[in-house]
Order: sequence, then C-alpha cells, then structure tokens
Amino acid sequence: MTKSMNPKKTPPLKKALVADWPALKRTFIRPEDDAARSTLIKYMEQILFGLHDFLKTHVGFTEAVSLKDLADRFTDSLISQNPEKKLADVITDLIEDIAPHAVNVASPYFIGHMTSAIPFFMVHLKTIVTALNQNVVKIETSKVVSVVEKQVLAKIHRLIYRESDTFYTEHIQSTHTTLGCFTENGTLSNLTALWVARNTRFSPKNGFGGVEKEGLQAAYEAYGIERSVILVSKRGHYSLDKSGGLLGIGNRNIVAVDVDEKNRIDLTALENTIHTFKKSPKKTAILAVVGIAGTTETGSVDPLSNLGDICAENRIHFHVDAAWGGPTLVSEKYRHLLAGIEGADSVTIDGHKQFYMPMSCGMIYFKDPTIMDSVIYHSNYVNRPTSVDLGIKSPSGSREANSLILDSALKIMGSRGYALLIDHGIETARKFADEIEKRPDFQLVTPPELNILTYRLCPLNLKNKLGQGDAEEVAQINEKLNTLNRTVQRLQREAGNSFVSRTTLSSATWPGQDMVVLRAVIMNPMTTIEILREILDEQEAIHKNRLA
Amino acid sequence: MTKSMNPKKTPPLKKALVADWPALKRTFIRPEDDAARSTLIKYMEQILFGLHDFLKTHVGFTEAVSLKDLADRFTDSLISQNPEKKLADVITDLIEDIAPHAVNVASPYFIGHMTSAIPFFMVHLKTIVTALNQNVVKIETSKVVSVVEKQVLAKIHRLIYRESDTFYTEHIQSTHTTLGCFTENGTLSNLTALWVARNTRFSPKNGFGGVEKEGLQAAYEAYGIERSVILVSKRGHYSLDKSGGLLGIGNRNIVAVDVDEKNRIDLTALENTIHTFKKSPKKTAILAVVGIAGTTETGSVDPLSNLGDICAENRIHFHVDAAWGGPTLVSEKYRHLLAGIEGADSVTIDGHKQFYMPMSCGMIYFKDPTIMDSVIYHSNYVNRPTSVDLGIKSPSGSREANSLILDSALKIMGSRGYALLIDHGIETARKFADEIEKRPDFQLVTPPELNILTYRLCPLNLKNKLGQGDAEEVAQINEKLNTLNRTVQRLQREAGNSFVSRTTLSSATWPGQDMVVLRAVIMNPMTTIEILREILDEQEAIHKNRLA
Repeated sequence: MTKSMNPKKTPPLKKALVADWPALKRTFIRPEDDAARSTLIKYMEQILFGLHDFLKTHVGFTEAVSLKDLADRFTDSLISQNPEKKLADVITDLIEDIAPHAVNVASPYFIGHMTSAIPFFMVHLKTIVTALNQNVVKIETSKVVSVVEKQVLAKIHRLIYRESDTFYTEHIQSTHTTLGCFTENGTLSNLTALWVARNTRFSPKNGFGGVEKEGLQAAYEAYGIERSVILVSKRGHYSLDKSGGLLGIGNRNIVAVDVDEKNRIDLTALENTIHTFKKSPKKTAILAVVGIAGTTETGSVDPLSNLGDICAENRIHFHVDAAWGGPTLVSEKYRHLLAGIEGADSVTIDGHKQFYMPMSCGMIYFKDPTIMDSVIYHSNYVNRPTSVDLGIKSPSGSREANSLILDSALKIMGSRGYALLIDHGIETARKFADEIEKRPDFQLVTPPELNILTYRLCPLNLKNKLGQGDAEEVAQINEKLNTLNRTVQRLQREAGNSFVSRTTLSSATWPGQDMVVLRAVIMNPMTTIEILREILDEQEAIHKNRLA
Repeated sequence: MTKSMNPKKTPPLKKALVADWPALKRTFIRPEDDAARSTLIKYMEQILFGLHDFLKTHVGFTEAVSLKDLADRFTDSLISQNPEKKLADVITDLIEDIAPHAVNVASPYFIGHMTSAIPFFMVHLKTIVTALNQNVVKIETSKVVSVVEKQVLAKIHRLIYRESDTFYTEHIQSTHTTLGCFTENGTLSNLTALWVARNTRFSPKNGFGGVEKEGLQAAYEAYGIERSVILVSKRGHYSLDKSGGLLGIGNRNIVAVDVDEKNRIDLTALENTIHTFKKSPKKTAILAVVGIAGTTETGSVDPLSNLGDICAENRIHFHVDAAWGGPTLVSEKYRHLLAGIEGADSVTIDGHKQFYMPMSCGMIYFKDPTIMDSVIYHSNYVNRPTSVDLGIKSPSGSREANSLILDSALKIMGSRGYALLIDHGIETARKFADEIEKRPDFQLVTPPELNILTYRLCPLNLKNKLGQGDAEEVAQINEKLNTLNRTVQRLQREAGNSFVSRTTLSSATWPGQDMVVLRAVIMNPMTTIEILREILDEQEAIHKNRLA
C-alpha cells in the first residue's frame, strides 16, 4: 500500500473491504434512488471544487517535498487482493495527497510550458466523452461520433487550406477520402505526416509493391536510393528525430538546417542542403522538408511561403509542424503570421495546446484527401473498406472521441472567442518583452513572434562587457551567466511561487557559444503583465539575495 | 451550423451570442458563488444521469436513422465566428441529439466488440485526471503523477513477471530503468514492442551507430542482412502488420504462421518457418515471434510456454500481445490459461479492455528494465537524461495521466474484484457455448478459451449434409450459410435490440473454405445467460421470418 502522506491522521477503524459480486455489479449501473444519486453528485462536487480550492490556495506550481521523497512513498509493487478503499476515500486521497504534489499548470504564474489552464467546461465535455465511452476505431462502436469527427476535421482543414465549398461538400463525409485524422499528440501527428510522405515517395510501381508492403530495403532497390533524409531547422521538435528512427530512416537522417538570427530556417542554407543532396554520389531521397509554425523553444515561425515554393520546385513533401502555432489561424489579427501554411502537404496541430483542450489530443491534416491511402489497414472483423471506420487510416487503433470536445468547444467559444485568447497571448508576450528590455539587469534573447519568448538575467556590468569583449571574454561571461540563470531558474522553481522553464540556445552573435535562457509561454488568459512583472521582480530578488 | 435533428422544436428567440473577454476569462476560473457552483453541478448531474436515462430507455445499441442520413446532417465545414451555443445547450444537444445516434456499448445486449460497460466510478476518475490536466511527458508538468505511474507499471509488471522483491525495490522508482510505459492503445503498444525488438537486434556495434540512428539500410549492411521478418499466427492483430509497415520492415514481412484446429499457432509450422528463414539464401533476421493471449477473433491463447522455449533456443525476441487477455492474470482460477507469459520479452495489455478503463489506455511491459534504452529521446527543454521524465522512453509526446485511473481502480476493486469480472466472462461464455450446442439450428465454431466464442446459424438439415458431403457440396452449403449469417447479423443489428459482430474464419476441416461466423465477446457483468438465450432466440426468429 502507498504509505500515507499524512502520517498524523489515524483513520477510524473500518470493516475490512471484500470484493463481492452484487456490490461490483452495482458499479456498472448508475444508481436509481435519489440518495445514491446525490452521493455520486457529491463526489463530482468534491472533484470540481475540492480540487479547485486546493489549486487556489497553492499559488505556486509545486510544493516543498522533493521528488526523491515522493518517490520513496510509492514503492509497493503488490496489488492488493481485496479492495483497499472506497471511491470516496480514493477521491479524498487524490485531492489531499496527490494534487498537492502535482503541478498547478493552471496557475497564471506557471508560464514555463505549453500546458496551461483550460476552461472549466472542458472538464464537463471530457466527462461526457467518458460516459459515452465510444471507440472511434470503427463505426460499430461510435456511429454518429465518427461522422462528427469527419465534420470537425473538415472545419479545421478549411481553417488551414481554405478550399472551395465544392471541395468540402465532396470530402467532408466521403467514405473514400479523408482530410486528416485525430491522434493523441503532436509527436504521433508528425510521425503520421512523415509516414505518409515516406510511403508517397516510395509508392508502388511496376513490380514493386510499395515501401509500406515491402520495406525500406526493397524500396531503396526499386528506386535506386541509398539514403533518405528529412530537412528541418535546428529548432525542430525532437519528435521528428523519433519519427526518423521509428520509420527506419534513421534519426541521423533528420538533417538540421541552420537558422537565421530570428530562429527561422535559413533559406539559403536549406537550398544549399537540397542542392548538395541532389548532387550527392550516394543517391539520396529527400522525403520531406518540415517548416515550423511556432518552435517549441522560441515560438518562431519559419517563412512558410518560401518553404512551400522551394518544396514545390523540388517536388518535396512539405510538412508544417504547427502543433503550437496552428490555432493562430483563428485570429483575424494575427493569422498572417502563418501565411503560406496553405501550401503545406501536411499540417500538425495539437488540440491540448492552443485549442485549450484537456490532455491529450493531436491532429494531422493533409492537402490531398487521397494521400492517406498509402497507410490504409483493414481487417476482417472491423475497418472494412469504404466504411466510415476511422481506424482504417490512423496510426492508432482504439481511440477516444476527443473530436466531440473540439466540436463543442468551437461552438461555445466561436472562432472569435479563441481569437481573443490568441491575441491576448501574443500581445501580453510583447508587453513582457518591452518590460524585459526596460530592466537593466535583463536581456531579451528572442523577442516573441507568437506568444513565446526567451530572455536571461544579465547584470548591467556584464552586459556592457559583452558588448566590448572578444570571443574568449564573451565565452567566459556567457559561462558565468549560464550558471546564474540555471541557479535563478531552479531557486524560483523551488520557491514555488512561479515557474519559467529554461533551455539552451546557441548564440547568434558568437557561433559555438551556448546560452542558457529562461523561457516563457504566455497562454493563460489570467497571466497579466502585472504578474509577469512580479515574476521578474522575484528573479531579481533571488539574484540580489545570492550576491548578498 | 449542424442542422438540427429535432426540426420540430423552434428555439425561443435569444440574444445573439458574442465572444467577449470578461466572460471568456471567467471560464478559466471555477465560479466562487454558490449559484454559479450549483449550475456547474447541475450540468454534471445532467451528464451523469441524463445520459444514463437515455441509455436505459434505448436497450439496443443503435437507432433507426441510417449512417447516410446522419452524415447528411454534418456537412457544414465553417466554424462559426461568434459562439453558437452555451454550455448548457451543448450538453443538451449531446444528450438529446448525439447520444441517441451513438452506440450503447454499455448495454448487456451489446456483445459484439471489446468495448463495453465501465464501472461508473471510472467517469469520476477520468474527471479528476482532466481537472488536474497533468502532462506526464515530463516531471515539470506532472511531478508526483510520474512517480505514481512508475509504481503502477511495477504493479502490473509484477502481475506478469513475478520477479523478486529485490528486483522491484531496485527498479520501481529508478530513474535509469523502466519496466514499461503507458501508451494510448494496443496498436501503439505492439508498435513499441517491435520497435524495441528491431533496435535490440540491430544495436550499435563497432563503427555502426545502431538502426535507430543510422536506419534500416545501414543496419542491414552492418549486420549482413537482406530481410527482416516477424512471425505471428494467422490470427494476429492487424496492428502488427501496421507496425511492420511503420518500422520500415514492410508489412509483407509480418509472416502469418498456420494455426491448429484450436486457432493456436501451429508450433511445428512455426519451427519449420524459423528453420526455413535460417537456411534462406537471402539472409534474414527474425526480429520477433509474437504470441497472442486472446486473439481478437476467437479469444484463443497461443501455447506461450512453448513459444518462450522456441524463442529462447533461437534467441529471438518473444512478444506477447495480451491486449485482450492480459488481465486474466488477476484471476487465481484462470491465470493458468496464460501460463508461460512470464517468459515473454515484452507484453502488451490494454487498460480500456479488461481493466474496464475508459477509452483509451494501452500499456507495454518489458522483462529487461534496460531494453527501452534503445528508444531514448532527449531534448534541451524537457526530458533531460536520468530525470523521471516519462517522455524519454515512449512513442508519444504529451500524454494524459491515465495511470492515476488504473491505480485508483486497482485500489477500489482489488485484484479479486477484477477477478470476479474475468471469471464471470469466462464462465458465462462457457454456458453460452453449451446453449449454442444444445440448439439444433446453431453450430459452435470456436469454443471459448477465454470469454470470446464464434458460432453460426446452421439449420439442422444443412448441418446433416455438411457431415456427409464432399468438398464441393460442403462449399456450396458454406456459401449458403455465409449468406444466411451475414443477413441475420445485419437484420439483428438493424433491429437495434442486440448486437453480435461477425468475422470470417477459414474452415479447419475444409481448407480453403471461408466461414462467416457470429462473434460474441462476454465482458459486461450484466450480460447473463438469459440475455444470451434471448439473443439466440431473436436470431432464430429472424431466420424463420426470412424463410416464411
């Protein structure tokens, strides 16, 4: 049994619990009588508000108990034979013993990651999805929900590609084509995009059954290829490397292209790379070029229009990883930041990021509604050809009906509601950047393009030296600053009032030098410029306190 | 906008909804005042019991509206700019317009698939997970929840492998090793197992960086291999083919081995296949042999002990797909049916199947706690080496904390509670088989080993002829029977009172002949032998009515 975290509380003596069939069966029928119903509702109240009250009182995202101490409390590997606890006690434990040691990602002071507060109605929507328990792998366990999913896919596809009414009328409910699919996260969406790109490049041809059927070795022989590569900027997400590994291409063949001073892919470097591979004596297939709409570290957006042109010219699959930035498209004010995305052959967007859905929901979209034919799988018992069985073209098997959540959220918020959130993030990030620049002991490292920025503590005296020093002196200062920022980030995290994350970027000015930077992601609508000032104040205070 | 399904209802005139910032911000704070709180609770009540009441009144799993008609109602591809509906209306629509056209998988008359009723407390548990909204990809967005996940993994690992206390003390919270990982479904678990098997077979060696890094082509060169195969019986799940395609091996290299008359892998055929590949002039690597503990179609269990021996002898990775059957291990009475599973190098188990969790939760376990080192991925900003960041060794990125649900359910049910469910399924399936055999117009095709069986309508006169006829006559009768069973299954489904699925098996007695069979999966504790008799009665009635 998990050792109690509240050793002081002695539980009252209770009758030992025993697994019994009539009681068990009752858990499969929701109770009929009012008393039992009101008990179930009471539990929900406890969940909705007990958790809420807790989160309110703990402003910070974490508590003082170390991970090591926590781990020591969860070391029993035996499953109890008899029931250990009733639902009420399990809920109480989760609220009193687990939640305080979880991370309060909903706090407006938690600006370190892409996980944030979600509107409370998302909890209701997820509860409905759970109560319905549909499995969208096949129509026989989902029916209308599969049809709804196809509609939502079309709505987001249209947001990206803006095809004609005729196009959507033809494809929205077609059982032969698909505009994309829901996955569980951006990683699986990127994997799906590159899987499709690989299969399209090595499609069946005279005597060759295609790479999906015959494998990479046979594909290389049939196409006279010795190596496959995928090109993406240095700021690409690690899921692309993972996809390269999974797909048999090898993750070293996910080639990192240099970025410009704005952390966008360097187009000249890209063109040179393409040229080099084309001329390489080792015959190389470029399976895809990946553009990023919102890099994880800096929120930068690659020049998508130019990338589209380069890919079209060289006939390369153009994938856009818009896991983060995709929902910016709902903002009339800022959708231009993603101009060119409509030229992509495939686009990744995450639902649990800027669509503010609960964990976890990914999506992948394709310009060509037939391109997913290269990843079709059937079976005798489900997923029959030309059915609406969504499992036919999907990396996953059994799958939750998260499309119902997005569909409902779009209705509750309207695109303008979502746009308000997007605009708030971008505009607050800009204010934050101004504030950082105003403060003598800080340095803005990457200004926000969307709603992510990086900066560092950089005391004025060192800042001045940075401007004058040679490479070696600068390297020494950077090293000092790296230690400083690592320490301040850690101390602030441990204090538990607020959280910014940190990452390491290579210096644009001094090649080869690494900079530890603080990273802020502004997506919580409750995160105001006042809160951001407090966070900077705290960092300054930690720094000064360290010197004292 | 979705066309209303209740065209008769004219909604009262309402003020148009507009996206506005203060209202939007309020959705991110759960309300403080009692009135607002009670509204939110009322919604939950509507979800918990409104849905419940509906499902009760619709015994069948589906309603009379055709899929085509449904599809015609979901053809608008535009996202509304302003909010269309308030939460209350969205919930009402979901209950009144969507749920009636979804599938009532919770009905005890729904015995066609592996999706079934779940205990009501699962809905509460999922709601907690959603309200906490942790992302277990990294400790910084999950903290204690990652630690809990490691503990649950150890509990299920122990159920499978029964290693020593020392073993679990060492690994349960180790930041260097892992006993497995949660995924989203069995497909992704099988993929992960084969990914690891591939990488272990083609691991780094002098000058070669390993297949994950350098790709399959380079691996084949380094190891002098021309082809990779994975062996599994004909009853293998289609996710294995999909994995073969994804991993670059080619799905034709997922080699189907014959089964015996009990639908278990034919060991002689397997040994011959291994022998043939070993002697093949085309140098072939056998990456894995897959044993099945509960085939999707017939619920059969391969002889796992023998498979383990064969794999050990030939030094082949032994994977067991126990997505369905795995939880049988909690039953003291029936765990012997999976004897030998402890010899597996990896084991897939689904949470949303016989652990009765909500959609969707998969798991993969490994005997060797270091074997997942072959699929490690780090990044600068998260998932740092030797942290408890679960995203380091996982096919997914962002991931929901479903381990909290399994952990809680194990505490609420105890292993004996789960065992009661398992035992009920197996024993009710046996009674069902007896009932089928008693009825002259039915034929039991595959008796239940676990809780799945197949049978068909086979009128007595044809049954007698089947016993006497030659191959050609039998083929004619089978064809007649196939049409009959296809029709009866469809008519019963359309009537909406009950649902069995159908699949096609090759005849054990008459090679080359296909049999359409009805398939029953008995997992709902409310499914009694009386209900099963009613289902057979209905099938008989449909058949007689057709003849009349």
